[in-house]
Amino acid sequence: MDPEEFRRVGHEVVDWIADYRARVEGFPVRSRVEPGWVRERLAGLAEEGEDFAGLLGDLERVVLPGTTHWQHPGFYGYFPSNASLPSVLGDLLSSGLGVQGMLWSTSPAATEVEQHLLDELVGAMDLPRSFLGGGVIQDTASSAALLAVLAALHRSSGGKWRQSGVDGSETVYVSAQTHSSVERAARIAGLGEQAVRSVPVDPVTQAMDVGALAARLRSDLDAGRRPVLVCASVGTTGTGAVDPVREVAELCARHGAWLHVDAAWAGPAALCPEFRPLFDGVERADSLTVNAHKWMLTAFDLSLFWTAHPDVLVDALAILPEYLRNTATESGAVVDYRDWQVPLGRRFRALKLWSVLRWYGLSGVRAHLRRHVALAELLESWVRADGGWELVAPRTLSLVVLAHRGGDEVTRAAMERVNASGGAFVTHTTVNGRFAVRVAIGAEATEERHVRALWEALRD
Amino acid sequence: MDPEEFRRVGHEVVDWIADYRARVEGFPVRSRVEPGWVRERLAGLAEEGEDFAGLLGDLERVVLPGTTHWQHPGFYGYFPSNASLPSVLGDLLSSGLGVQGMLWSTSPAATEVEQHLLDELVGAMDLPRSFLGGGVIQDTASSAALLAVLAALHRSSGGKWRQSGVDGSETVYVSAQTHSSVERAARIAGLGEQAVRSVPVDPVTQAMDVGALAARLRSDLDAGRRPVLVCASVGTTGTGAVDPVREVAELCARHGAWLHVDAAWAGPAALCPEFRPLFDGVERADSLTVNAHKWMLTAFDLSLFWTAHPDVLVDALAILPEYLRNTATESGAVVDYRDWQVPLGRRFRALKLWSVLRWYGLSGVRAHLRRHVALAELLESWVRADGGWELVAPRTLSLVVLAHRGGDEVTRAAMERVNASGGAFVTHTTVNGRFAVRVAIGAEATEERHVRALWEALRD
Repeated sequence: MDPEEFRRVGHEVVDWIADYRARVEGFPVRSRVEPGWVRERLAGLAEEGEDFAGLLGDLERVVLPGTTHWQHPGFYGYFPSNASLPSVLGDLLSSGLGVQGMLWSTSPAATEVEQHLLDELVGAMDLPRSFLGGGVIQDTASSAALLAVLAALHRSSGGKWRQSGVDGSETVYVSAQTHSSVERAARIAGLGEQAVRSVPVDPVTQAMDVGALAARLRSDLDAGRRPVLVCASVGTTGTGAVDPVREVAELCARHGAWLHVDAAWAGPAALCPEFRPLFDGVERADSLTVNAHKWMLTAFDLSLFWTAHPDVLVDALAILPEYLRNTATESGAVVDYRDWQVPLGRRFRALKLWSVLRWYGLSGVRAHLRRHVALAELLESWVRADGGWELVAPRTLSLVVLAHRGGDEVTRAAMERVNASGGAFVTHTTVNGRFAVRVAIGAEATEERHVRALWEALRD
Repeated sequence: MDPEEFRRVGHEVVDWIADYRARVEGFPVRSRVEPGWVRERLAGLAEEGEDFAGLLGDLERVVLPGTTHWQHPGFYGYFPSNASLPSVLGDLLSSGLGVQGMLWSTSPAATEVEQHLLDELVGAMDLPRSFLGGGVIQDTASSAALLAVLAALHRSSGGKWRQSGVDGSETVYVSAQTHSSVERAARIAGLGEQAVRSVPVDPVTQAMDVGALAARLRSDLDAGRRPVLVCASVGTTGTGAVDPVREVAELCARHGAWLHVDAAWAGPAALCPEFRPLFDGVERADSLTVNAHKWMLTAFDLSLFWTAHPDVLVDALAILPEYLRNTATESGAVVDYRDWQVPLGRRFRALKLWSVLRWYGLSGVRAHLRRHVALAELLESWVRADGGWELVAPRTLSLVVLAHRGGDEVTRAAMERVNASGGAFVTHTTVNGRFAVRVAIGAEATEERHVRALWEALRD
C-alpha cells in the first residue's frame, strides 16, 4: 500500500469509524452471538491479496454482531474504557510514525514526550514531588502491579534478588477487595499464593482493616517471614472502596515494605481538587498506578505508573546485551524505558495521551469526571428514595453498587434482564456475600437520559 | 470530539501520515538531537483545550527532528519493525471500535478472529498440529518468553508452583547468543541469574553446542537441580544463528524440560517452503514465538505465541474474582484470553494482523520476505568479493554480519560514519569478541539501490 492508496483507504476507514460511533447507540451493548458464531463465518487465509473493502464488509457482517460495544452510552460494566476520538487519532499517529522507543536513541521524542507528560501530571494531580522523573507508561495496571512487586523484592533483598531470586519468606499484603492482579503478580514473581495475605475489610466501607493488617504483619514477622509489599487501593474494583493509605503507609515504613497504591480506576479524579482528599497519604507511596484508559479518555492500553524509586526498578530489570549498547545510554544522560517494563520494545503510546490532554485541556478532563460523578449522585438519590433497591456500599465517585431488598435472585434477574435488553450493560460483585449490581458510570457518551433508562429498567 | 469532527480531523491526520511516509526518505534515519532537546521545546499542560492543528504542528517542529525513522528504507538496525500501511489501518479500526477483549464475552469477535488467524497460520507456516487451539497474540517476544517460563515452572512442579512458588532448584538453559529476554524472564519469575545456564555456541555457526548442553544438564541434575526450560533460537539477534532444535528437543524430552523456540525475527520465513527447513524440529516444541511486528508487516506490537499446552498455561495464570464471572466462561465453551497473558485487559490486536494478511495475501507476504533475502544475498556476494570486509558469521535469511579485516576500530568508525550520514542506520554486535556490523534488511521500502548505497558508504 503506497501513501496515495493509504490516503484513499484511510479516509474510508476514518469515515467507517465516524459512522460507527454515530450509530453505536443503535446496537445492543452486549453481543448476542453464541460461542463459535464468529469463527464459522470467517474465510481461510487467501493466497492473493484483496482491497480493503472485504475487511470493512466483514466488520459489518461478522465483527459488529460479535462485539460488545464498550463505547456505547449504556455501557456500565467493569469500568468503562473510553477510546475518545482524539485519543484514537493520537494512536493512529503513533502507528503511522511506526517508531519503537525501547531506548532513548531509538526515538528520543518517544521517551521525552512521555517523561514530560508524566511529570506534568504529577503537578496537575498534586502527586508527590518524589514521583518527578519516576513516571512511565505501562499497558495495564496488572503489569504495573508486577513491576511494583519486582522492585519491592529487589529492594527488600538488599539487591540480592536479581542474582539469587526469591527465598520463599517474602510476603505480600492485599485486602479482600484488592484487584486480583496483585495476587497474580506475586504468583508470576515466583512467590506462590502462600505468600499473599488477604487482609479483612471493614464490612461497611469495604476498606482495608488497618488493625488487622498490623496484626498480620506482626504474626508474619514473628514467624520469620519478610513483608515485601502492601497494596492499598484508592477505589477498589468491586465497590470503589478507599483504603486508609496514610495509616497503611505508616505500617509499611515501620516494616520496610513497599507501598503500592492502586488507583487504576479512580486515579484521574485527583485532577479535581474536591476529590483529591481521597488520595490522602499517596505522598508516602513507593509507587502508584492510574489507568488513563479507564476514566481519562485515552484508548486502551495506557496505564500511568509512577515510582519514587526508579533507580531500584531499573536495577531490578536492566540487562544490556551487546546489540543494545549505544553512546547515548553510556553517557548516562538519558532514560531507556526498556528497563522500566517487562517487554523490551514499546510503542509511542504517549501520543494518545498527549492528544487527549491537548484536545480537552485539563478543564475538559475535569468536566468529564465531574459529569459522571454528578450522574452517579443522581442515581444514588433515586436508589435512596426507592423501597425496593438499596446501596450495599457507600458510593465512591461514579460507581454505584446496589442490590434489591428482595434477595440475590431478584437482583440477579434484574441484571440479566437489563443486559439481555441491549439498552444497557452492567456487571456484578458480591458485598458481604450479597449479590450486587455495579453501575460504573464512565462512558464518554453517557447522559442523564441513559442513566434514567437504566434505573427504570432495573426497577421494572 | 464528535463523529463529524473526527471525520474532518481524521482525514487531516491520515493525510499527514501519507505525506510523512512519502517523504520519510528525506530525513536522516537516526535522530540527531541531543538529550533534552525535545523536552525543552514542549509546553506545559493547558487548562483549555485546543484544535488538533497544534499537535500536528508540534509533530513537525519537535517530534520529527527527535525521531529515528524506523520506516525509512535505510533502516537496518536491530531488526526492522514494519508498520505497513494496511496494518496501520487495522490498528486504527481497533482503536475506533474501542473494545477490550479480556474475556470472550467482553467482545466475542476479538477472541474468535484471533483464534482463527493463529490457527490458520499454523497451516500456512507448516507448524505442528499440536499448536492448533494454542495460539495467542502477545505484545512482544519478551512477554512470550515469560509465559513460557511460567508455564514450564508450573508443569515442572507437578502443579505446585501456583501455590508454593519456586524452590530455587529450577534451572533455565539458553545459549550465549539467546536473546536477553529469556534471562530476564527467569529473573522476573523469581529464579535469579543463578538459575540461568549460558551454553557455549559453535564458534563458526554461533549455534548452541548440544554436547555442551547435554553435559551441563547432566552436571546440574547431579547437583540436585531441576531443568525447567531450554530456549532454542531460530535466528538469534546477534547473527541470525539457528540452534539445532531437533537435538535440543531430544534432550528436553529426556529431562522433562520445556522447549521454547524463539523465532521472533526469522519466524515469518516459515511461510516460504524453501526456508521452512530452518525450523526443523519445531514440531517438538512446547512453545514458539514469532514477531509479526518485525518481518511480517504488522505495526508494533504484535507477537505470535503458540503453545502445545494451553491448559498448563491457563492453569498457571488463571484467577477469577467475582466481578469477572460470567455465563459464557462458566459454560467452558469459550476461551478467555486474559488467562493467556500477564495483563488483564487486551486490545483487539488481531485486526492489524488480519488487515495485513488480507491486503497482501500469503503470496504478498512471501514476496516481501523473499525480496529481502535476495537483497541480503546480493550484499553477501559483494562482501565476499571485497578485499577489506568479510562476513564474520554465516548469513541467515536477510541478516548479514560483517567486519573489516583492518580491525575493530576500522569497523566501528565505518559504522559511525554511516550512521552520522543520515542515509542509513546499522547497529552492531560482537562475534567471538570481534566488533561487527549487523545489516538487517527488512524495511518494507528498502530496494537494491538503498543496499548498494549502504555498501558503498561502508566501503568508503
